[in-house]
This record gives sequence, C-alpha cells and structure tokens, in this order.
Amino acid sequence: MSDPKNTERSLWLGPDGWSVEIIDQTKLPYEVAIARLGSVEDAARAIVTMQVRGAPLIGVTAAYGAALALREDASDESLAAADALLRKTRPTAANLGWALDEMHARVQPLAVCDRVSAAYERAAELVEEDVAANRAIGEHGLRVLRSLLETKKPGAPLQILTHCNAGRLATVDWGTATAPIYLAHQSGLPIHVWVSETRPRNQGAALTAWELGERGVPLTVIADNAAGHLIQRGAVDIVIVGADRVTAGGDVANKVGTYLKALAANAHQVPFYVAFPETTIDWKIQDGIAEIPIEQRDAREVTHVTGAVGRSKRAEVRVTPEHTAARNDAFDVTPARFVTGFITDRGVCGASAAGLKQLFPDAAINL
Amino acid sequence: MSDPKNTERSLWLGPDGWSVEIIDQTKLPYEVAIARLGSVEDAARAIVTMQVRGAPLIGVTAAYGAALALREDASDESLAAADALLRKTRPTAANLGWALDEMHARVQPLAVCDRVSAAYERAAELVEEDVAANRAIGEHGLRVLRSLLETKKPGAPLQILTHCNAGRLATVDWGTATAPIYLAHQSGLPIHVWVSETRPRNQGAALTAWELGERGVPLTVIADNAAGHLIQRGAVDIVIVGADRVTAGGDVANKVGTYLKALAANAHQVPFYVAFPETTIDWKIQDGIAEIPIEQRDAREVTHVTGAVGRSKRAEVRVTPEHTAARNDAFDVTPARFVTGFITDRGVCGASAAGLKQLFPDAAINL
Repeated sequence: MSDPKNTERSLWLGPDGWSVEIIDQTKLPYEVAIARLGSVEDAARAIVTMQVRGAPLIGVTAAYGAALALREDASDESLAAADALLRKTRPTAANLGWALDEMHARVQPLAVCDRVSAAYERAAELVEEDVAANRAIGEHGLRVLRSLLETKKPGAPLQILTHCNAGRLATVDWGTATAPIYLAHQSGLPIHVWVSETRPRNQGAALTAWELGERGVPLTVIADNAAGHLIQRGAVDIVIVGADRVTAGGDVANKVGTYLKALAANAHQVPFYVAFPETTIDWKIQDGIAEIPIEQRDAREVTHVTGAVGRSKRAEVRVTPEHTAARNDAFDVTPARFVTGFITDRGVCGASAAGLKQLFPDAAINL
Repeated sequence: MSDPKNTERSLWLGPDGWSVEIIDQTKLPYEVAIARLGSVEDAARAIVTMQVRGAPLIGVTAAYGAALALREDASDESLAAADALLRKTRPTAANLGWALDEMHARVQPLAVCDRVSAAYERAAELVEEDVAANRAIGEHGLRVLRSLLETKKPGAPLQILTHCNAGRLATVDWGTATAPIYLAHQSGLPIHVWVSETRPRNQGAALTAWELGERGVPLTVIADNAAGHLIQRGAVDIVIVGADRVTAGGDVANKVGTYLKALAANAHQVPFYVAFPETTIDWKIQDGIAEIPIEQRDAREVTHVTGAVGRSKRAEVRVTPEHTAARNDAFDVTPARFVTGFITDRGVCGASAAGLKQLFPDAAINL
C-alpha cells in the first residue's frame, strides 16, 4: 500500500472520527464529489440511491450504517431497527446480509455501553479485510493473466473484457475483477481492457472507464451489444467479471448482461472468470436461478439516460417515446457450467460446489 | 392496403412528382419530421446520416438517388458516378448493391432521353415490390406465430423479442420482423413485444417502440443486457429480427447484439427467426464471418447518447469520461446454425443453403 494511488479509497472515516465519507458514485465520471454519511438513514440512502454500489462496498457501508445507528442509540431495539432498515436496501448482493450478520455477532453480546466502539472497530476491520481480500484476488488473478499471456505473441497485449464495475469503486480498494488488472498493469504486463458500457446505468462507461483511465490502464469502451461480435472475432482473450452473489453450487448473480457474455465466451472457448471474496458466497443456497432474488429497478433507468453536457453539467435525456413501458431487471444469473473458474481471496478454483469446498473447507463444512 | 394506417410509408414521391420525401428518422421519436431529397447527393447523405436506415429502405432510397441523378444528367457517366456515390454510403446491407444493380440493368441499355422516366418507373416498382414482399413476410410469419400461440395457455400473450428496428421504418411499409407482428395484432391475436433498446443508436428504444406504440401493439422496452435473463426465465416465446445481409449459406449479418440474442435463444431452445425479403440475400458469398464487411461507425455514438429533454427538445449527453476511447462495430454475424428458420417473402425455410435453394431455386441455380 505504499503506492499513493492505492491509498485512494471509495469509503473512509471522516475527520471527525465517526462520520463516514464516500465518493458519490452517482456523480462520476463528471465530478469527483464526496458525500458524508452522518446517520444510519444516510447510509441506507447512499446504498438505495447507488451513491455507493458494488457488493463488497455495499457490505462495508451497511456495517458503518449499523455503527452510526448505535452511536445514536446502542440498545437492542436500535440495533434491530438499523439491521432491518439496511437489510432491505438492496436484495441481490450477498455481502450486505453477511456484513450485518458480522456486526450483530460482534456487538449484540456486549453491554450497551461497549457497543459503539466495538461496532466502529468491527467496521474498520471489515474495511481492511475487504482491501486485503481484493489484493489477494489480484495476486491469484495475476497468475491467471500471466499464464494466458504466455500463449500470445510476445508483446501482444492480453485482451480482457469486463462488464459493469467490479472495480475499486465497487469495493474499498483494488476491486475484484480489476485487482488482477491493476496488478498486471503495475507489473508492466501488456494488457488492454474492453469495457462493456453496462446499460442501463452505464457503470462500465462511467465508473470502470473512469477508474481504469485514472490509473493509466489502456481501455476501450464498447456497447454491451458488441461483446458477442468481439469474442467471435478473437478480440477477447479472457472475460473477468465480479459477482453480487455466488451460490454454494457455483451459480453467479451479477449485473444484468453478464450471462450473455458468459454464453458468448462459452461458444468460443474463451476463459470466463468470476472474481469475488468469500463474503460474496451464499453458502445457504445452491440453485442461483431459483433462489437468488433479482432486483427490479425503476423503468426510468431504461427510458432515460443521464450524462454530461459539456465538461461537467449533468443532464438527463429520454431515449424512448413518452410514456413507454420498460422493464429493468438489474441482475442475471450465470449457471456454474458457463464459468471457467473463480478467482477468490483464497485462490483460484473451478466454478462448482467441489471447487468452492476445496478453497473454503470450513465454511462449506459448517452448513 | 385499405387500412389508412398502412398507407403511412417511410418514403414517397413528393407533390412535385420527382423529388422524394422521407421521414427523417434521426428526429424520431421526439419529432415526426419530413425531409426532402432533391438530388443524388441528398439521397446519399440521407443514407450516410441515417435519416433513412434499414436494409430494404436503404435500397429503395438508393434507387431514387439514381433516378434523381439521371434527372440532372442521363449520361452513362452520370449513372456511373451516381452508382459509385451511392454504393459506398454504407457497406453491410445487401439491398443497396442489389437495388443499384436493378436500376443499372433497367436504365443503362436505354437511349439517354428514355432513361429518366424508366428510372422513376423502376424505383416505383421497387417501392411496391418492397411493400408486397414485406406483406408476404407478414403472412408467412403469421403462421409461425399462430402455431406457437397454440402451444400456450388460451389467452396468454405470445412473447416476442425483437432487436433494433426491422420495422416499417426500415422498409417502405410493414417492416420485415414486424410484418408478422402487425398482422397478428390486426388479427386480434394476443401478443406482447420485448423491444431491445439497441445501443449505441437506440433504434429499438427510439424507432421500434415508436412505430409499434403508434399502431397500438403492446410492448416493453428492455436494456440489451436483459435479453439473456428474460430468455432464461421463460419470458420469451420467439425471437424475430431482420437482416442486413444473408449469405447463400444462411449466415446472417444484422445489427450488433443480434448474435448474443441468438446464443441465448439457442441455449434455451427458444425459436430464433430472421425475417427478410429475397433482396437481402447475397448469393455470391457463403461464409458470413469471413465475407460480410462490418461497418465501423463513429466512436461518439458509444460515448454520447442523444435523447429528448422535456417533450421534444433534443440534447446529447456524454456517458463516459472525456477523451475515452470507444469502438463501434455496427453489425455482427450470426452463423446459420443458431437460426431456427428464415421468414421470407417466398415462405418459411430452414436457415441453410438447402433451405434457401428450396425457396429460391432460380436465384440459387443462376450462380
């Protein structure tokens, strides 16, 4: 962490020592704005409005939300109310429930007067655990990238396709899918990233293009529609995406559109990897299609597009006729059989119950 | 054609009897504007700027472009220059070259003084042939829809997914993929259309949603990314798209993103049909991936989105960081093996050389 670039985080404790500051991601890439969260309501609102998003960052923000609630009132009732408020903010990410469970387990057994400091301590641990997990994902993923590079002509860049933002903005730092990319770039390996724009909210075009560009990683934005064509034409060596929830059986919920990329990669034998920390695994379920709730978001995200006019003024334009119906499923599920492998903080494994059990024997056994 | 709705065309001869009027599709759905083409340069510009688009309509517009050129100068040189100008406007649609070949064959053998009237006559024939071909596609496709409806619960709507605009706006009237949809709707069959927005130019969100909505067909716009998810969840009974070029072997070039939908339909055994008139077939080539040129369009179409602010004021917003690289392949190729069948003006056939030969024995034999 000596590189100053890597001390830029997406969430940190404010100078007052108790409020939480975040990069307001709804303003990117047009403006780098900081928002302050001073209450559990602020934290819940930041998650709902997607000022913070990305499964790991949602988890950490929720943890601090619980701490903020306890700071106002450290009673059992307050903890339960905060938990209920935060848990319902978004349905798909596994890390949200996991982080709240962690906070509850640490805080609830304590005397009321000891809870606030314990909550802040645990939230800070979750932050550091997230950074360390992503760094570990990067190290393991880097080996995957290196071995693929060896199959290419010397000097030819490894062509990596990613979808949505599984970057440092989706975590506290490093990102999941982007951690191997950042490490490869820092190591001087030749890489180039195809950034899928990720309609309807354009997290690829707005966030991934911004953060990769800021750190000097070569990239090209494409329409989501172009992924199949590029894969068919041999322009993609590997697909790496993040995950919002991975089942014990290896099914992957991630940003809608991931499944189409998995199908294309599968059709052309292009390796398709999913990168995530242990906290993204939902050990309680097997069948992702049947059991993972898919968030339905506002139709307006489909019928309208927000962007910049000029340098930084933001505006919203309508791309459909007025009063047009739209549907907005925010995630999809990619069955394990379409995934080449998982890149986790514990190592790389096959996308299956057996693969996960091998890397996480304790968690798998505890079920 | 007694229904007044179906006399609304996307191109017609102006009141002066020689200029051509079109719906300026770059202004839809925010404004229904008419543009006048008074010269071959106007016609070429209308194609290049996509005031007209869609393979069949590009062909007809080019035919009138040749007529407009001959009206100014009916010499061999003028005809050749018009042909060269128009032929290079867009590379992927087969109908463009076909229409120009037709014009040349009709006009070139004639004395110079007879050429203008013959050119207008042939262009008018192409218009009527296009309308008749699309109407025939509609009749044949309607049988496909009816037979699928019979497999559903009585009253449950047939769920049709389409991509881009293969509608009346892509032709003179009826459309290719939409002709069966309009006929089904007029026949009172319960249908619902999922309209894929079709980034980067949003022809689905802007044009297909507009024209289906205008004629009262129930529709819902989705992000392109959502097609795989909806197909996986059983929300799609049939995919119907148009085509810009179909090879003698049955490979299909169509708007980028088509291939991803074909892969998803294939993975879930959902019928995937391509609707086109004979003029879209390029009998000279077999292998679509190797032989069909894929148009590369301006990166700005990816980095910026045009839409309406308020009711009809148009604005362009940037969705990426400034100076972000983007790539914009406008079409992709779906290999024949992923296509369930072709719906043509001659009938329905398998997506193969044999299927096409059966419906078009003359054309296939002439090679």
